[in-house]
Amino acid sequence: MPKAKVAIVGATGFTGSELLRFLPGHPDIEIIAVTSESYKGQLTSEVHPFLSVHIDLPLVSADKVPGLKPDLVFLALPHGVSMDYVKKWYEEDFKIIDLSGDFRLDKASTYEEWYNKSHHFEEGFKDSAYGLPEIHRERISKSELIANPGCYPTVSILTLLPLLAHKNFAQTRDIIIDAKSGVTGAGAKAKELNHYSNVNENFRAYGIKTHRHSIEIQQQLSGVAHRTLSIQFTPHLLPVDRGILATCYIKNPKKLPDAKVKLMYTDFYKNEPFVRLRDQIPAIKDVRGTNFCDIHVTSDDRTGNIIAVGVIDNLIKGAAGQAIQNMNLMLGLEETAGLKHVALRP
Amino acid sequence: MPKAKVAIVGATGFTGSELLRFLPGHPDIEIIAVTSESYKGQLTSEVHPFLSVHIDLPLVSADKVPGLKPDLVFLALPHGVSMDYVKKWYEEDFKIIDLSGDFRLDKASTYEEWYNKSHHFEEGFKDSAYGLPEIHRERISKSELIANPGCYPTVSILTLLPLLAHKNFAQTRDIIIDAKSGVTGAGAKAKELNHYSNVNENFRAYGIKTHRHSIEIQQQLSGVAHRTLSIQFTPHLLPVDRGILATCYIKNPKKLPDAKVKLMYTDFYKNEPFVRLRDQIPAIKDVRGTNFCDIHVTSDDRTGNIIAVGVIDNLIKGAAGQAIQNMNLMLGLEETAGLKHVALRP
Amino acid sequence: MPKAKVAIVGATGFTGSELLRFLPGHPDIEIIAVTSESYKGQLTSEVHPFLSVHIDLPLVSADKVPGLKPDLVFLALPHGVSMDYVKKWYEEDFKIIDLSGDFRLDKASTYEEWYNKSHHFEEGFKDSAYGLPEIHRERISKSELIANPGCYPTVSILTLLPLLAHKNFAQTRDIIIDAKSGVTGAGAKAKELNHYSNVNENFRAYGIKTHRHSIEIQQQLSGVAHRTLSIQFTPHLLPVDRGILATCYIKNPKKLPDAKVKLMYTDFYKNEPFVRLRDQIPAIKDVRGTNFCDIHVTSDDRTGNIIAVGVIDNLIKGAAGQAIQNMNLMLGLEETAGLKHVALRP
Amino acid sequence: MPKAKVAIVGATGFTGSELLRFLPGHPDIEIIAVTSESYKGQLTSEVHPFLSVHIDLPLVSADKVPGLKPDLVFLALPHGVSMDYVKKWYEEDFKIIDLSGDFRLDKASTYEEWYNKSHHFEEGFKDSAYGLPEIHRERISKSELIANPGCYPTVSILTLLPLLAHKNFAQTRDIIIDAKSGVTGAGAKAKELNHYSNVNENFRAYGIKTHRHSIEIQQQLSGVAHRTLSIQFTPHLLPVDRGILATCYIKNPKKLPDAKVKLMYTDFYKNEPFVRLRDQIPAIKDVRGTNFCDIHVTSDDRTGNIIAVGVIDNLIKGAAGQAIQNMNLMLGLEETAGLKHVALRP
Repeated sequence: MPKAKVAIVGATGFTGSELLRFLPGHPDIEIIAVTSESYKGQLTSEVHPFLSVHIDLPLVSADKVPGLKPDLVFLALPHGVSMDYVKKWYEEDFKIIDLSGDFRLDKASTYEEWYNKSHHFEEGFKDSAYGLPEIHRERISKSELIANPGCYPTVSILTLLPLLAHKNFAQTRDIIIDAKSGVTGAGAKAKELNHYSNVNENFRAYGIKTHRHSIEIQQQLSGVAHRTLSIQFTPHLLPVDRGILATCYIKNPKKLPDAKVKLMYTDFYKNEPFVRLRDQIPAIKDVRGTNFCDIHVTSDDRTGNIIAVGVIDNLIKGAAGQAIQNMNLMLGLEETAGLKHVALRP
Repeated sequence: MPKAKVAIVGATGFTGSELLRFLPGHPDIEIIAVTSESYKGQLTSEVHPFLSVHIDLPLVSADKVPGLKPDLVFLALPHGVSMDYVKKWYEEDFKIIDLSGDFRLDKASTYEEWYNKSHHFEEGFKDSAYGLPEIHRERISKSELIANPGCYPTVSILTLLPLLAHKNFAQTRDIIIDAKSGVTGAGAKAKELNHYSNVNENFRAYGIKTHRHSIEIQQQLSGVAHRTLSIQFTPHLLPVDRGILATCYIKNPKKLPDAKVKLMYTDFYKNEPFVRLRDQIPAIKDVRGTNFCDIHVTSDDRTGNIIAVGVIDNLIKGAAGQAIQNMNLMLGLEETAGLKHVALRP
Repeated sequence: MPKAKVAIVGATGFTGSELLRFLPGHPDIEIIAVTSESYKGQLTSEVHPFLSVHIDLPLVSADKVPGLKPDLVFLALPHGVSMDYVKKWYEEDFKIIDLSGDFRLDKASTYEEWYNKSHHFEEGFKDSAYGLPEIHRERISKSELIANPGCYPTVSILTLLPLLAHKNFAQTRDIIIDAKSGVTGAGAKAKELNHYSNVNENFRAYGIKTHRHSIEIQQQLSGVAHRTLSIQFTPHLLPVDRGILATCYIKNPKKLPDAKVKLMYTDFYKNEPFVRLRDQIPAIKDVRGTNFCDIHVTSDDRTGNIIAVGVIDNLIKGAAGQAIQNMNLMLGLEETAGLKHVALRP
Repeated sequence: MPKAKVAIVGATGFTGSELLRFLPGHPDIEIIAVTSESYKGQLTSEVHPFLSVHIDLPLVSADKVPGLKPDLVFLALPHGVSMDYVKKWYEEDFKIIDLSGDFRLDKASTYEEWYNKSHHFEEGFKDSAYGLPEIHRERISKSELIANPGCYPTVSILTLLPLLAHKNFAQTRDIIIDAKSGVTGAGAKAKELNHYSNVNENFRAYGIKTHRHSIEIQQQLSGVAHRTLSIQFTPHLLPVDRGILATCYIKNPKKLPDAKVKLMYTDFYKNEPFVRLRDQIPAIKDVRGTNFCDIHVTSDDRTGNIIAVGVIDNLIKGAAGQAIQNMNLMLGLEETAGLKHVALRP
């Protein structure tokens, strides 16, 4: 079988460089173009010296991509920029995986409300699939445009999914998600927020009530639950490069015992290649460098709550790895191809 | 006025060394003894070279303390060990501030249930005061034995106190506290848990459902609220030395608007020297090295929740600093004496 | 005695905020003005929330300073900017401590060669003193303009000084200084260099052969040694906020035994309040938050080298603390006033 | 071709777990046994949860190994323990790669002097090869026992090798190596040294004059140079998990210009798969997770020194990766098989 031809649009940020780390090891695809408007003319090894020996391609302008007849294109661009490429290339004969937030919500007006930005391509919402294979695998495999999920939504949704998909929780409305992310979630560009001395030995909450991922989580989980949930989502900034841990709280109305709750998870995820259920509470380093989501769940008889904790690597299962998983589904490849990495630990 | 004479029992752990950092700068007291059973015969500067020039005292056995006629003794000992000193010295003519968990709960049987350890001195519970000045200032100033609060309870209680003390929240029963602490909370002794490579670039929850501070928080807040609350408390381990941030979630039954909630806090804390209300979300580095608790509170109309975030330095307001604040109250000194430090930032 | 009146010009960077942390605790001075051109009109507590309660002053334009009749002005400004204020205020009736590099070298042409920048005020070199009290105490106390030393030079010079001042090393020419600094040395402004993910879990050398502090160290040590030395200085960037460690290598031509070398240091520094000689190798955390320089020296019989290791807090003994020490000398105050801090450890 | 059968003796420490991370991805070998005396009976996934899905083998006693007829055995054991296995298995029909320091030096008496420990198997020195392929490739490929190099020696030797192998440096005797390592070099066992709060935000030198790697470096470089060199080696402890950077200083007696020195390196290493020469100064994160050694060299006309900087991942090129490289040579496999990892960056 000839290798599938893929292009990476926007290869100098963190998600772009993750795609460059992963894709050369994929057995069934070939990278035919890597783009950057700011660094075009340079080699990937000049921008990312750590990639040298492994891969070395010239950075070109995104305009060159359609002419190269790719089978699939990754858009690793900021939100607000991505939608213009989707619009421009919508009739082209290649599939698109958009890693930005531009098509993750249900419609343009919701986007505009939470992103404070006008949307230029309402049509994209109609045909796109939300790229979380654990919910939408079939739809993804048939779609031409994937809205690759946000990092916080990926781990939050996976950590709660078996409960909200179940009739035992049919009355549940209120959920609290307290999430903590490493710094790479905020991008590669230097700003006050990611100055070393503002992050190191520090910790803070941010975006309380207003973070855009609140509505993304709420819409997806509401879809699974077939009713409108109320998600309280609070993100925090961890002094680490990579990793998100989400601690999720939900009432246990039927007072299911701990073992029963654990069993719901085991059953639900028994065929998922990238979800690992853990008896011990997972740590973010357990999944660093991998596409895994590790989850621990328990019920507390004293308080009547269920507490579920999930961890991912935000740049992998929360971005580039999940994008590759989606690509595998869209191209009919083995779902785990190119994603069999082991955590870098210690 | 002659300086008050104080002794530090257990000066080689983290809380002991914090007392040694702070007390020499206190204008009204004099350290008459510093003890260690393991290092007796050595100087404090040998065990803690960073203290040299600042203070240098010989480490002696705790047995010497009563003979030196102190006015007040700090017990910076592990729980389970502290209670034996309290018992032995109960009739002595000096005040005691116990920094362990041995007398923080309401009675011996509760202690035994949550600490998995038998208690040898029930009598101590009767006369001790829980050393959180923001609740028990008057009682502390008259007490001979102080149970100095835990680090997590200090920040959790202070962050929720203005709400639970108020009739607007008279029906509230369920509270979620998601807390994150630096490593020094786990002590100075090397163990797998605090091996650098298990903490660095890592983050995890621990003690879900079972952490002893759950019941300490629940008892104190229930006391304030005059009913039995249900506290869900989840601690996490941050890759930093110092600092705790607690994110607290509580329903807003009267749908109080944001400004009204903020005003409740401003009113409640207007005379407190060590609580700072913040319009911005505080970060742990804002209070590092100080006795401050910084708090931000907001209400979310969309979800009907109130979210309150508090930060402290776990070794100071969460341990040694609060102990000194209690000492000041017990000895009739200015409450802020010896505690006017500015955060080390960056 | 009335308190001396001081102003801080440039109070929003790291050295400016350190001066604001330290000076309010100084018994003999009063801050009469704090300036910022970018933030004028705001309060210091708005720019640095961690300072609130401790100090709160309005930020004004530097132009206001002369009219307030200060006794002494700190210039906490970037190099290249400082010299213009020195020039403008040269005839004013107040002393100046310049924390930039503008007057540290011997003359304008050397400055221009190493700083790649033209110098506008040659005259300043003539009357300024290099503000390292351990070498120039007397000159400092009589000077109107102090060039406060660089952070690397401070620790490098102090670590080697007792050897180079001694006739036993009269033939020594070659010295290697391998130094490692925390990130705050690169300033508070966000740039690629101090993006968290470029520093965290990372380590690199930089400025090999070309770092400006090479010539500053070489000139000062050559002055002490009364001949032209050749200093090989290599800086490295540590993943910590604060602290510099300098490892210095020098031949031991007379094969002095270890004890003899240690004695040379003890003798040389016996009256210095801020130099601590250490039998154990010091760590940067031993001096974090203090004005101390801790030094360990040893001779290696096998190789014939002397190895000396020194540590400082780059923002304190390497900047703001040393500036205050210089201020104390210039104003006839106790040299250690306002500088009696203990290391924040852990 | 049937896969080669290998066993890992000592699979619970850091180097053992690195072998477990790497070997399952190797195309030509099969792991037939994994041993631990302390954890035998458990699964690797119980001791290292992050490995689950990837590999899961029962831990057995080392005594089982010979009966399984391996082709090659890795000893990932502490020094002093390893030599006993080498002695016991010396006549067995399998090759051994010893990752400890037991056979790295020239003879038992040197070992005893620098390791303060008696040696029980002098014979092993005779037939072993020092496993640095860049020097001893041919000898390694024919050897039955490999002394896998220390982490500091690997990077120090590679960084200086092209100079000392060259006649231009035939008179050079004095070399200074200032090296900085992450914490994993000190092993997985919790001790005061690797308590998070002793490492984090900290930095120190250690083992000045006495570190065992001094003599290992000196012997290897002296062998290359055909004379006895004098190596001053100073290690330091970095607050990172992984990575070593060595800054090396050597006189430039022929005053070779910068370009000429760089060319010597390019020539020398042109066929080496794991050495990358860098125009920019490398950082440890550039090689994290890989078997690369990145090197930058420059000559300083002002001082007459050459400064060479090298970086490796101490657990990979400094331990497990190099061991696999040696295995490939010993078994006649492609030298880079199983080692084509890209750096985890950011």
